[in-house]
Amino acid sequence: MRLSILTLAAVLGGTAVQADSLREDALDIFRALPSTVPAVKDNPATPEKVELGKWLFFDPRLSASGLFSCYSCHNLATGGDDNMETSIGHGWQKGPRNSPTVFNSVLNEAQFWDGRAADLKEQAKGPIQASVEMANTPENVVATLNSMPDYIAAFETAFPDEEEPVSFDNMARAIETFEATLLTPAPFDAWLNGDDGALSEDALAGLELFMDKGCASCHSGVNVGGNGYYPFGLVEKPGADVLPVGDKGRFVVTETADDEYVFRASPLRNVAVTAPYFHSGKVWDLDVAVDIMAESQLGEALEPEETTRIVAFLESLTGNVPEVTVPVLPVETADTPRPKAEILELQ
Amino acid sequence: MRLSILTLAAVLGGTAVQADSLREDALDIFRALPSTVPAVKDNPATPEKVELGKWLFFDPRLSASGLFSCYSCHNLATGGDDNMETSIGHGWQKGPRNSPTVFNSVLNEAQFWDGRAADLKEQAKGPIQASVEMANTPENVVATLNSMPDYIAAFETAFPDEEEPVSFDNMARAIETFEATLLTPAPFDAWLNGDDGALSEDALAGLELFMDKGCASCHSGVNVGGNGYYPFGLVEKPGADVLPVGDKGRFVVTETADDEYVFRASPLRNVAVTAPYFHSGKVWDLDVAVDIMAESQLGEALEPEETTRIVAFLESLTGNVPEVTVPVLPVETADTPRPKAEILELQ
Repeated sequence: MRLSILTLAAVLGGTAVQADSLREDALDIFRALPSTVPAVKDNPATPEKVELGKWLFFDPRLSASGLFSCYSCHNLATGGDDNMETSIGHGWQKGPRNSPTVFNSVLNEAQFWDGRAADLKEQAKGPIQASVEMANTPENVVATLNSMPDYIAAFETAFPDEEEPVSFDNMARAIETFEATLLTPAPFDAWLNGDDGALSEDALAGLELFMDKGCASCHSGVNVGGNGYYPFGLVEKPGADVLPVGDKGRFVVTETADDEYVFRASPLRNVAVTAPYFHSGKVWDLDVAVDIMAESQLGEALEPEETTRIVAFLESLTGNVPEVTVPVLPVETADTPRPKAEILELQ
Repeated sequence: MRLSILTLAAVLGGTAVQADSLREDALDIFRALPSTVPAVKDNPATPEKVELGKWLFFDPRLSASGLFSCYSCHNLATGGDDNMETSIGHGWQKGPRNSPTVFNSVLNEAQFWDGRAADLKEQAKGPIQASVEMANTPENVVATLNSMPDYIAAFETAFPDEEEPVSFDNMARAIETFEATLLTPAPFDAWLNGDDGALSEDALAGLELFMDKGCASCHSGVNVGGNGYYPFGLVEKPGADVLPVGDKGRFVVTETADDEYVFRASPLRNVAVTAPYFHSGKVWDLDVAVDIMAESQLGEALEPEETTRIVAFLESLTGNVPEVTVPVLPVETADTPRPKAEILELQ
């Protein structure tokens, strides 16, 4: 069929109207990434603090063994996570839950799968001390940092006028300001900002389905999730392989029966590059993950075509990773605590 | 004492002559880093091959567990090595020898402590297959790379006109070309190139001692070592803590009795930032390492002041690390082999 120029203009005009109306609906639910690095609560960023945070993020000497840095499980080269079901930690132990991406995490309402950390500065202190992750102690971390003059100088510059600039809390604050810079603007942002060509037809149809089916009831806001808590298996509990009985989610935080198997709705930015899925990390295929969600949360079996389109929308959430140069870290001295790989030495 | 301008000129003139003569002697023994990336044998570099090599260097999916990349033990943020006695590998096993720095390693005559790999493309294949390191197989690596379209495209561009561009050998070739870019020009290079002010008085005195005492008989050339094999304990064997009886060094490569406890003379560039020392990694203090070398190789007990000056010279070998941006790696697909953390699955 050949279209006359007039007909073509009418069709395009119609599409433009449709796109505008879809965008209006979408903007009621989602928000494009901010164009500047978000400010974080009680922790004003300076270039020096951000740079120190980058050092710390990359420094394996924050772990007892000297093997793990923040970067190990939040690998900036692979979507900001580690491509494992659950992370390998100190002594080859497996962590209890899938490592979430660090990208855009500053925009989550709270941190961890159960939201037990209010923000990234609280979060950063968790894995460093977890016996199955970095297995370190605040005292040993501070001794490590204080053993290197370049670290002391960097903390003094990043936290001027403080009596004790080198501290476990300030370490976490610096890391938070670095992590806040890790935003990944995606085609979906370009589209929300008015670029009609940024999303494919499939992605647009997927977005429409994502809103109409109800996915967006939980996965909304700037991170398309990460902003509320919901029972996993609202309509139908998935199998114990995906939802292990032993992990009761937010119940551990609130100790409220209603919070059994309640988890934070996953922020979906970069979801297409951060398999495997769910807190258990048991599902590697995004199509399968979408189908499980539709069944367990919405009680709906999706048509294969619907799944494909929703996945096309989710792929439009894969963003541009900011350029990060590997830092050159301060050198150990005679006073630097030595790596402790032994598992027995843990408390 | 105050010097007149004339006296000062005379003194400076004398120093200049001394410096020139010391430089002449030094240039007979050492060589400044080349100003361009060295060509590697049978492996012409292109920007595309180097970039692919960087991807591979940073990719933890080259290990069976998905935890270790080349970067893990050759950390560009910490001197190109890992600050451990011996590296932690698959299943939390400890490697047999200290991880050497990747910086300037392209200029070593051969690779590994016993020189068993002729070059970096041969070296790169070792740790990936070692059961105590990355514990992978060439077949699994190739399957991994072939599962990701972006890797296939990158291999096709880096190795044009080849029938099978994605191969374990080509992986190693690409890594070699990236590693060849990791040169770290140091104050000692600036001084060799004619900058009188690049070395402190202590470093110059240390350089003189380094040559006069005989250290430079083994640690010579562009990498101040890395270019010959020598018995550890030429004059006096160090204790079994530093020289474990079970590791006979180059003997395993040549099966010649003369090669028992023979090791490659360590390349000393960046030695001050790559503790701990020796193949056993048992010595953390550079002063102590220098004293052990003087006693075991030269039969000489150094005066503390001599040690200090030699260390000052060695510190002038700490170079500028090139800027390396963390790559964004290809995304896994349904065909990508999954991480295998199990130790039992190893052959």
